[in-house]
Amino acid sequence: MDWKSEIEAAAARIGHRVQATPVVNVSGFGLDHPVELKLEHMQHTGSFKARGAFNALLASDVPAAGIVAASGGNHGAAAAFAAHALGIPARVFVPEMAGPSKIGLIERIGAELTVVPGEYANALALAQDYECSTGAMQIHAYDALETVAGQGTCIREWEQQGLQADTVLIAVGGGGLIGGTLAWLQQARRVVAVEPETSCALRAAQLAGQPVDVEVSGVAANALGARRIGDICFDLAKGIDTVLVKDDAIKTAQKALWQERRILVEPAGATALAALMSGSYRPEPGERVAVLICGGNIAPDPQLS
Amino acid sequence: MDWKSEIEAAAARIGHRVQATPVVNVSGFGLDHPVELKLEHMQHTGSFKARGAFNALLASDVPAAGIVAASGGNHGAAAAFAAHALGIPARVFVPEMAGPSKIGLIERIGAELTVVPGEYANALALAQDYECSTGAMQIHAYDALETVAGQGTCIREWEQQGLQADTVLIAVGGGGLIGGTLAWLQQARRVVAVEPETSCALRAAQLAGQPVDVEVSGVAANALGARRIGDICFDLAKGIDTVLVKDDAIKTAQKALWQERRILVEPAGATALAALMSGSYRPEPGERVAVLICGGNIAPDPQLS
Repeated sequence: MDWKSEIEAAAARIGHRVQATPVVNVSGFGLDHPVELKLEHMQHTGSFKARGAFNALLASDVPAAGIVAASGGNHGAAAAFAAHALGIPARVFVPEMAGPSKIGLIERIGAELTVVPGEYANALALAQDYECSTGAMQIHAYDALETVAGQGTCIREWEQQGLQADTVLIAVGGGGLIGGTLAWLQQARRVVAVEPETSCALRAAQLAGQPVDVEVSGVAANALGARRIGDICFDLAKGIDTVLVKDDAIKTAQKALWQERRILVEPAGATALAALMSGSYRPEPGERVAVLICGGNIAPDPQLS
Repeated sequence: MDWKSEIEAAAARIGHRVQATPVVNVSGFGLDHPVELKLEHMQHTGSFKARGAFNALLASDVPAAGIVAASGGNHGAAAAFAAHALGIPARVFVPEMAGPSKIGLIERIGAELTVVPGEYANALALAQDYECSTGAMQIHAYDALETVAGQGTCIREWEQQGLQADTVLIAVGGGGLIGGTLAWLQQARRVVAVEPETSCALRAAQLAGQPVDVEVSGVAANALGARRIGDICFDLAKGIDTVLVKDDAIKTAQKALWQERRILVEPAGATALAALMSGSYRPEPGERVAVLICGGNIAPDPQLS
């Protein structure tokens, strides 16, 4: 697979349909050294998922039945947003654990929405039924070439913005974002996977030597709670370091992002920073570290004036 | 006054004690063209005020009694933060209308705090009493050379980051930020002042030909509710356009910043964008517009996991 070309093609395809998100070099967070952050939670629909969704739709001949997506919330919102922008009908299945904020977000975009009891895997099963019965095209949340290539445009953009770091920390759910990152970087920088202790599909797959099902729970589960790592990610992530963080560390990082920098994110968006703040990942002396802030769809929605 | 030199000196003095804040070029908001935003609400203590506070402290021989500040909240937090960082005792007077989030923020920083019934002017009167009785140095919120020069480092930084715009929209309370901006730009770009209809000290001064007292109220009053524009700002702002916005327009812009870009700000932080979104300010064809997002200390604090 010529991933560099796939990601270049994705970037050309997507163009200005996604936002270039800002980067900032921040001090604080109890760290000895500044850290580079990319604020990808400011992407359309509040996460990097818009990149993969636009790429998947633009690279395909979408059938008249439109598209179907199963999602913990962020991918569903992104797929719905991209479909709406392109005039394509969209049907989204989300698990109850997505929560009212993400469900409301998808409703506002205007997709047909079905809320499914339980977790992500249940929504995925129903989406597959829908795909078979209607002929709609399924946009997989993470384990499809076009999705991974789309997510890879995020690190490509960051390098164009002058990324300095030796090491990039990325939160992992099903592996679309880290897969795209690894695919683009081709070992030019170190990539560290960060998973919640209670949703660690990549770590489990590394231990088992193949993707395996895991139980998922915890504060970040509605974004990072994929029950099984994607095959594409598993292949790309062979040999990389995987770091686990506790829910309390995620909550501490989430609070610090707000209190120190007025960056408001969902728990998944604070998970990679949590590895650094908690010491789960300890950089070597002189190692420059960057953290991708991947999602901002906090629940409940903040109370405005 | 050689403002350029004052602001250069302020930038050198402050150095890395303040954060360089990110900039982003965004589409959306119902606008025909993208707009550049500087996310200065990500500054220490959630507003640009940290710049002026550090400059004022570092440029002065601070007496043993320390410093005193009167503030709608943001300046008090910034003065307390800067004093704490420099090991200086700080006493802050805030009006009740500052609200529990800003009051809690100042308490967390560790300053001595007095909450005063009513509005900003009441807090200022007590701060002046305190100054006289203790010999503490008062850090004025906006109408002092060092404060204005410190705030001017924000637009200096933005230009170094590649600001493209012909026109910069800035919310005005007492005039420290726009004063510093005008002082730096020296008419190199157009600067438009945006005030809430219900707190428009600059407009009132322009109409009267001199700074005059105004009534202040509305959703942004705890940040923009200066009863009288500063003399420094009044002199610098002669002849510039002043645009007024309604509270509803401010709330709409605040909501859009969150829903479209996951940028969570207080009403004052959304006020300049409100001028653009509401049509109170209408750019000419081809005019490139930038908006300074100046404060993020929303109340109540968002509910985290």
